[in-house]
Amino acid sequence: MTMVRALVLERQHELALREIDLPLEVGPGMVKIAIHTVGVCGSDVHYYTHGKIGPFVVNEPMVLGHEAAGTVVEVGAGVTHFKVGDRVCMEPGIPDPNSRASRLGMYNVDPAVTFWATPPVHGVLTSEVVHPANYTFKLPDNVSFAEGAMVEPFAVGMQAATKAKIMPGDTGVVLGAGPIGTMVALAALAGGCARVIVADLAQPKLDIAAQYPGIITVNIREQNLAEEVSRITDGWGADVVFECSGSPQAWKTIMDLPRPSGTIVAVGLPVEPVAIDIAAASTKEVRIENVFRYAHQYDRAIALLGSGKVDLKPLISETFSFEKAKEAFDRAVEARPTDVKLQIKLVD
Amino acid sequence: MTMVRALVLERQHELALREIDLPLEVGPGMVKIAIHTVGVCGSDVHYYTHGKIGPFVVNEPMVLGHEAAGTVVEVGAGVTHFKVGDRVCMEPGIPDPNSRASRLGMYNVDPAVTFWATPPVHGVLTSEVVHPANYTFKLPDNVSFAEGAMVEPFAVGMQAATKAKIMPGDTGVVLGAGPIGTMVALAALAGGCARVIVADLAQPKLDIAAQYPGIITVNIREQNLAEEVSRITDGWGADVVFECSGSPQAWKTIMDLPRPSGTIVAVGLPVEPVAIDIAAASTKEVRIENVFRYAHQYDRAIALLGSGKVDLKPLISETFSFEKAKEAFDRAVEARPTDVKLQIKLVD
Amino acid sequence: MTMVRALVLERQHELALREIDLPLEVGPGMVKIAIHTVGVCGSDVHYYTHGKIGPFVVNEPMVLGHEAAGTVVEVGAGVTHFKVGDRVCMEPGIPDPNSRASRLGMYNVDPAVTFWATPPVHGVLTSEVVHPANYTFKLPDNVSFAEGAMVEPFAVGMQAATKAKIMPGDTGVVLGAGPIGTMVALAALAGGCARVIVADLAQPKLDIAAQYPGIITVNIREQNLAEEVSRITDGWGADVVFECSGSPQAWKTIMDLPRPSGTIVAVGLPVEPVAIDIAAASTKEVRIENVFRYAHQYDRAIALLGSGKVDLKPLISETFSFEKAKEAFDRAVEARPTDVKLQIKLVD
Amino acid sequence: MTMVRALVLERQHELALREIDLPLEVGPGMVKIAIHTVGVCGSDVHYYTHGKIGPFVVNEPMVLGHEAAGTVVEVGAGVTHFKVGDRVCMEPGIPDPNSRASRLGMYNVDPAVTFWATPPVHGVLTSEVVHPANYTFKLPDNVSFAEGAMVEPFAVGMQAATKAKIMPGDTGVVLGAGPIGTMVALAALAGGCARVIVADLAQPKLDIAAQYPGIITVNIREQNLAEEVSRITDGWGADVVFECSGSPQAWKTIMDLPRPSGTIVAVGLPVEPVAIDIAAASTKEVRIENVFRYAHQYDRAIALLGSGKVDLKPLISETFSFEKAKEAFDRAVEARPTDVKLQIKLVD
Repeated sequence: MTMVRALVLERQHELALREIDLPLEVGPGMVKIAIHTVGVCGSDVHYYTHGKIGPFVVNEPMVLGHEAAGTVVEVGAGVTHFKVGDRVCMEPGIPDPNSRASRLGMYNVDPAVTFWATPPVHGVLTSEVVHPANYTFKLPDNVSFAEGAMVEPFAVGMQAATKAKIMPGDTGVVLGAGPIGTMVALAALAGGCARVIVADLAQPKLDIAAQYPGIITVNIREQNLAEEVSRITDGWGADVVFECSGSPQAWKTIMDLPRPSGTIVAVGLPVEPVAIDIAAASTKEVRIENVFRYAHQYDRAIALLGSGKVDLKPLISETFSFEKAKEAFDRAVEARPTDVKLQIKLVD
Repeated sequence: MTMVRALVLERQHELALREIDLPLEVGPGMVKIAIHTVGVCGSDVHYYTHGKIGPFVVNEPMVLGHEAAGTVVEVGAGVTHFKVGDRVCMEPGIPDPNSRASRLGMYNVDPAVTFWATPPVHGVLTSEVVHPANYTFKLPDNVSFAEGAMVEPFAVGMQAATKAKIMPGDTGVVLGAGPIGTMVALAALAGGCARVIVADLAQPKLDIAAQYPGIITVNIREQNLAEEVSRITDGWGADVVFECSGSPQAWKTIMDLPRPSGTIVAVGLPVEPVAIDIAAASTKEVRIENVFRYAHQYDRAIALLGSGKVDLKPLISETFSFEKAKEAFDRAVEARPTDVKLQIKLVD
Repeated sequence: MTMVRALVLERQHELALREIDLPLEVGPGMVKIAIHTVGVCGSDVHYYTHGKIGPFVVNEPMVLGHEAAGTVVEVGAGVTHFKVGDRVCMEPGIPDPNSRASRLGMYNVDPAVTFWATPPVHGVLTSEVVHPANYTFKLPDNVSFAEGAMVEPFAVGMQAATKAKIMPGDTGVVLGAGPIGTMVALAALAGGCARVIVADLAQPKLDIAAQYPGIITVNIREQNLAEEVSRITDGWGADVVFECSGSPQAWKTIMDLPRPSGTIVAVGLPVEPVAIDIAAASTKEVRIENVFRYAHQYDRAIALLGSGKVDLKPLISETFSFEKAKEAFDRAVEARPTDVKLQIKLVD
Repeated sequence: MTMVRALVLERQHELALREIDLPLEVGPGMVKIAIHTVGVCGSDVHYYTHGKIGPFVVNEPMVLGHEAAGTVVEVGAGVTHFKVGDRVCMEPGIPDPNSRASRLGMYNVDPAVTFWATPPVHGVLTSEVVHPANYTFKLPDNVSFAEGAMVEPFAVGMQAATKAKIMPGDTGVVLGAGPIGTMVALAALAGGCARVIVADLAQPKLDIAAQYPGIITVNIREQNLAEEVSRITDGWGADVVFECSGSPQAWKTIMDLPRPSGTIVAVGLPVEPVAIDIAAASTKEVRIENVFRYAHQYDRAIALLGSGKVDLKPLISETFSFEKAKEAFDRAVEARPTDVKLQIKLVD
């Protein structure tokens, strides 16, 4: 065990930037990474404000943070494709490679996955972490640490775009212009959509999305979304609809949006079961895909950042120093509609 | 117009076997068929007992029947692949070949489809009918007219099995052992499933399904379905779940059944939107397919009957003469659990 | 029949800009279009220089040209979605809507297709043409006629990119940097590739492709392509390889390029059967897709042009007036490596 | 190391049934199996007659055999789903679970796979073997050891049938009626084909295949295969063609067989690159799939045997005792056309 500085959630509502003892031995197949930048995710904030998410309860002090990039500082036995000094980002979930799901290539649905900052597993708002090389990914020279720390939420969008099986030139719709909705819209555009219609009722969020070419915004306070989709698609409907709001309300009228044989990807998670109109879905033979985190998306996401096809920098709203990490969380609790992603920079 | 004998639904609750004037000119691309056998479908019975289905209301006398087989008696201009005397069965829906959906190959979701025995379109419980050659299909010598008249409901099963994208050796589950559930189970077996678990609470229906090798029945009054599926699949779950009951109850616990990354095909249509647990679907990345009638299934269905891979004869519960057509409908209203399909034979 | 001015291939080597009698009645479902711009395609040039392509022989004078955009000047009965003045481009192939292939949604492989400027069917290097509304497509305001006339060759690239089933962030390889190779590269990028490696031995062609972000060029006179692909993909291989050269040489070493379970799309057509290493393809479980023209790509292609995701303007090398149409063809015969697309503008 | 009795290939042409020292420690995640039945595969015979296959050369004495079933006699640490006495069969290939291919779910294309009876790895014609539990599969009570030892070659057919993406009711063609062709035909039927046309020039092989309902045989010495396929499919062509002969001759005319947009699965491996007509493949937009061994097929194959959908027993031509193992190999060298599979039973 090694004593390191970390942002610790002592219990609900109580954060401390303090020393904590963490296991940092570098075993075979592992690398040690000095953390450079960590993004603040809604789930981190939720543990802070509620002390739990569903069945996951913070009973012991837990280090927060799971969207991270940094620099390799030590390389374990058998690791050949990393060397000290490599700039990297990391997948926060570590599956059991011998589970049936992992062996089938879908490690994200392996129930044995351990995930950073999900009790009782510590996160990475700390100076150093040890991680499997297999879930660590090199950043190209032209991708900054700040962008590297954005790969995690962008991978959620990539998983949705991949499951959608977008055909080149498709028209997409994204319901909900929060951070995940925006990530999904960008992944859908990069993944083949000609245009993505993003709908929300908060204009500041729409304004951020509207910066990107290919995104058309619809403020559902002012416009009828189904009519807009119909107008833009000559009455045919959208090829893919990404539900990112998690709102039961969104599901009420969602079947008006897809084209015949179109697709809905459920990204937002409603707390309770939602009423879905199967009869309407039948008439159009709609396919509904569900996604859980991501699998095999990091290298693809990084390739898109590296080639310049996707630019996530406009989504970084503000960067806090490690010393001001608590301020970052309190700012996140405010939930300003102009904030997409807040980050904490651990290294000067 | 030609005067022919037909089973006419005069209005709700009133059937008459009488003469009626129908257009029987054989235009280009059309064939005239002497009807031999017609199956009684739940929708026919529903028009009889309720006078309408959703927005489709019987305002004028309407000939019933849409599951039909017969013999070609006249061939229109330009039709080269049929000759008088060919034994055939027919798709009851005629789409607009120039609609966008039809041109994309999915004519079943073309809103312009006209469908036999759907007001105001007449059905085929009548001596003769004129039909597009493109939606008429030759029966092999070893497939009887009675089986030919079963192709229509079996095509519904085929559509579900096709959308499921079954992989060879999959394990299927069918919820609901009514006629459609049984058709779906047979199509799933023919389409690659190693075994299909059929669940219902009516034992006589299960007993009929249980005649088929590869079908395992579960009476959900006596057994916990999720436990049975888990036991049979070594705790992994079913590859494909076909929801054929249309019951909101079935949707409540359906997410316990599929394996990680498994599929649910919604075949039964609940009257109201049903509560679906998106969070549970997400954890397993379940894919939900919706189906509407069928497209491009008749030739495949007939090939399966002709090669002996599928035997629908055990599902024909009783055959009535044309003179006793009303009796067939009254028997159907009884809804005996041992009845799967009642047929009316128009030709001696 | 109406007398119109047209560029007529009288016979091999002999072009005439002259009056010709063409049928221009506007039947039901048809529109009449005043042609504005027509691109010169390699097949047009080949008829000019060789008088035939495979089994298609120019035995009668034939109007050339099939890459066209123009303005609707008359609308046939039953056509509701066009009006006089609409700016449009047109698919040059007209299938039989009642063929089995068309009904399945793949009208491009319908053997009954008639195709502009394929003997004995006239092309559209003429003032007016009558065409089915179903194969006519509106251009957005921000897409010029010149770009509209590029949709045809771009649709070839779209078909290849669609068949490839690109996943977001894939790495593509294009063999051959001619007009089609370049179109394929752009469609692959728009369709989800993070980057596309374009290989050729003509540097001027590579230089044109290299203008586009996301395209990496490899001059195979100077660099080993397999090594470059391996280097760029960390030894894994390309997700999709588009063979656009039609060269047997390219097929010799092509299996070194894809990743395990990668895809090859054969776009270029070798004159003779080519030797393919099935054993090497097996070791990687390579999938090989073949494409023929395109189906259902025009609206998607136009959406990509309209949203700004794809810019084809840099590929228009020079525009000739209708009076100088013969010069355009003689310039095309030169085959300058810096020429991608030559166009003829019929309207001032 | 433990001394066990084994059939050892000492060098080309020289087999010995003798004692040999093998490592039989049961590590964590492993099981020890007492071998009951082993099938003789063409590759085993090829090592016997040629001393090598491609780059794999028998330089040291090697135990032969890789198609095996037996009984668990010892269970390693951490293995929970097996117990002593379980009847099982085993996959002969063991991949590196941490390779990129394995993590993507396609361990069969992992270059690091070690495979039984592939120099320098010993096979399992021996009394006992230690194997990873993950690649060991329980046999249902109604599946014999003899059938269990057939799962390996049947899995090759399953992989081909899976890659084909058969739709329910498809028509398949298999070129080559050897053991693998027959396995492929049975897997294709089980996987959804209504009928499979098996073509060969050896009538005794066709006669064995013809025993199975759904299989239509064509002796290509007597009948024109393309004409037969056209006749059976009403001029449309086969949905899937499985090339199992490995003969360059078969590839010459193969493009006549598939329907527009049909599929060819290359199962047989020609020694040299074969000439393939890309232009003909293009006209039909044929998809060509290549397969390598199998991945994730054992449980599916066993489910099909257990449910009675597939019966491999008629393909076991003769069973030899362990003492007569050499005779089995000499009989295999004879290559009688009536022999499909020879097996060696190690336990009385």
